[in-house]
Amino acid sequence: MLPEVREAMAVVLADVGNPSSIHQEGREARERVERARRQVAALIGANPEAVYFTSCGTEANNWAIKGLFAANKRKGPHVIVSAIEHPSVTLAAKRLQMDGAEVTILPVDREGCVLPGDLKSALKPGTVLVSIMLANGEVGTIEPIKELTAIAHEHSALFHADAIAAVGHWPVDVRELGVDALSLSANQFYGPQGAAALYVREGVRILPLLEGGGQEQGGRSGTENVAAIVGMGAAADVARQRLPERVEQTLLLRDRLRDGLVERIPNLRLNGSRSNRLPHNLHVCVEGAASESLVLGLDHEGIAAGLGSACNAKAMRPSHVLKAMGLTESQAQGALVFTMGEMTTEEEIGRALDVIPHVVEKLRRVTRMTVRAT
Amino acid sequence: MLPEVREAMAVVLADVGNPSSIHQEGREARERVERARRQVAALIGANPEAVYFTSCGTEANNWAIKGLFAANKRKGPHVIVSAIEHPSVTLAAKRLQMDGAEVTILPVDREGCVLPGDLKSALKPGTVLVSIMLANGEVGTIEPIKELTAIAHEHSALFHADAIAAVGHWPVDVRELGVDALSLSANQFYGPQGAAALYVREGVRILPLLEGGGQEQGGRSGTENVAAIVGMGAAADVARQRLPERVEQTLLLRDRLRDGLVERIPNLRLNGSRSNRLPHNLHVCVEGAASESLVLGLDHEGIAAGLGSACNAKAMRPSHVLKAMGLTESQAQGALVFTMGEMTTEEEIGRALDVIPHVVEKLRRVTRMTVRAT
Repeated sequence: MLPEVREAMAVVLADVGNPSSIHQEGREARERVERARRQVAALIGANPEAVYFTSCGTEANNWAIKGLFAANKRKGPHVIVSAIEHPSVTLAAKRLQMDGAEVTILPVDREGCVLPGDLKSALKPGTVLVSIMLANGEVGTIEPIKELTAIAHEHSALFHADAIAAVGHWPVDVRELGVDALSLSANQFYGPQGAAALYVREGVRILPLLEGGGQEQGGRSGTENVAAIVGMGAAADVARQRLPERVEQTLLLRDRLRDGLVERIPNLRLNGSRSNRLPHNLHVCVEGAASESLVLGLDHEGIAAGLGSACNAKAMRPSHVLKAMGLTESQAQGALVFTMGEMTTEEEIGRALDVIPHVVEKLRRVTRMTVRAT
Repeated sequence: MLPEVREAMAVVLADVGNPSSIHQEGREARERVERARRQVAALIGANPEAVYFTSCGTEANNWAIKGLFAANKRKGPHVIVSAIEHPSVTLAAKRLQMDGAEVTILPVDREGCVLPGDLKSALKPGTVLVSIMLANGEVGTIEPIKELTAIAHEHSALFHADAIAAVGHWPVDVRELGVDALSLSANQFYGPQGAAALYVREGVRILPLLEGGGQEQGGRSGTENVAAIVGMGAAADVARQRLPERVEQTLLLRDRLRDGLVERIPNLRLNGSRSNRLPHNLHVCVEGAASESLVLGLDHEGIAAGLGSACNAKAMRPSHVLKAMGLTESQAQGALVFTMGEMTTEEEIGRALDVIPHVVEKLRRVTRMTVRAT
């Protein structure tokens, strides 16, 4: 979390009210929540009235899929999602399927990119909703959302984009994209856990997932987590101001890390799109070394790499994203994600370039010995 | 929030990890979440494995109703809820009804109490689920949950109790009650916003409401809000230790406030059960004065009273709880809730007894003048 976020939250945590209460402290809490809503809206080019706070990205995605479908299912029982969505989208769609909907899973190409032609072929008169992520947080590929949305709209289907991996690291403007709904999560851009949001374009019908007291214009009931929402607002404000430098800086460091690793590690596979990718993401596969051993080995050396999807770290299966991209099990071996942040320094990249090749070489040696011994 | 809660949260907010990550900081976050789970479980007499964290009480209630129904609906399409449930239970049940379920609304008596005989008559072979609150946060009535659960179980129906208003203020033991599921929320017992829990008895089937990365044993996906969860644990720990004194102290202050107000305010109606009620709750109706004017007038004098349901403060209709208890619109006029806390002092009660009668008299005078003028 950014210091600005911590400070904003500390003020609230010192004295927090219920925004639905009409007491003085309740009114203050309400003003703070609405200020945060304006800050988040400004980051994605939305009207504040179109931004609904949720408790996490998973809730935003579940709500989008289930709520948009439930409110518009008269059109038909068909939903389209891509093969590389986060489980919160895929499993929500699977639930609709259990309840009678028809779900089409769109393939991706070798770089993890959804092809507009594939969406065109999948759409039919009964398609209610298309959900494709703006960028994949694992392999870093940015999808052509503007084009995909236009195609969906030609068939009168709604379009939801999971932008959780992108917002705060890459320019995201809901008006320019034309999407009907878009998910974002504070803890992905130096904000706190416990706050996320769903943008729902004005006029788009959606049924609530959490029903009750009617908070968030009736869209998401439940007492607001004021501290986390205020922290999300502060993080959004910083992101909006610093986005150009953030993109430039992380891109520079990422490319340096990428080029250095390629030079130092034989048989290193770079994954995801070369041209359309998140600037702060590097995804590689290290043949002959296990992903988990690499992450633990690097952690021991003070380097935090990701296994692929932190949300699913317990499941040691090969990632569904790499599978969808057509990688074989052995090609998908040793998958590692590195993420640059605005706190990442050139010195850290230099150190990473010293350390990572050694850890890789050590683990590859172990693997070779194990293979010989068996 | 209690100082103990603030302190526990500050430690986490200074350096928080993702509990699903296998990094060192991720493992620390995981340990903190599991410690909080044990603390919450101890407060309600549950095994830690049966406690699932959610983002708010509304989510816990929505999940209980929708998730228990979805997982067990083969038995039939019938659900029973009481007429005085929180909207997060009532509206969740209404959603099931929209999707084809049959919903029975149980009446309450003049004191807001569900009669066991009424539940008996309502149960049928197709009843999947009964949801009745442990205590009503508005009028304070405690329902005979142990008896009601036993009746539901005789008919092989599941029993969920919304205990949000009770936990931390009144002894709640899930084993003694025998319930299959029970909701509680941190911000109702001096914990933070953003953390609540659903207890689900071992062996009871429930489908998730939030699907995705499989956190909370697959029951509730989404990155955990570690700070809020840790705060909830700390609040639960304090509540468990101090519960006997809390009950004794709030009961004393509440009775003093009640008797003093009855003595000083003519035509004051006391609502809810006299014998089975939350010790920290006082609910009155002030004939001849509007609820909102009273709350604002008292707020101006530094006294925080509630309108009835803070979750629904914007809707100025007479409360559904008072209606269900059989109060006429004029009898339900001027509804006010006072809540004692462990921070409430005798001096504050003394001051409230000085101030409230004056505010009431002033507003009643205004009402009389308005009536005369029209």
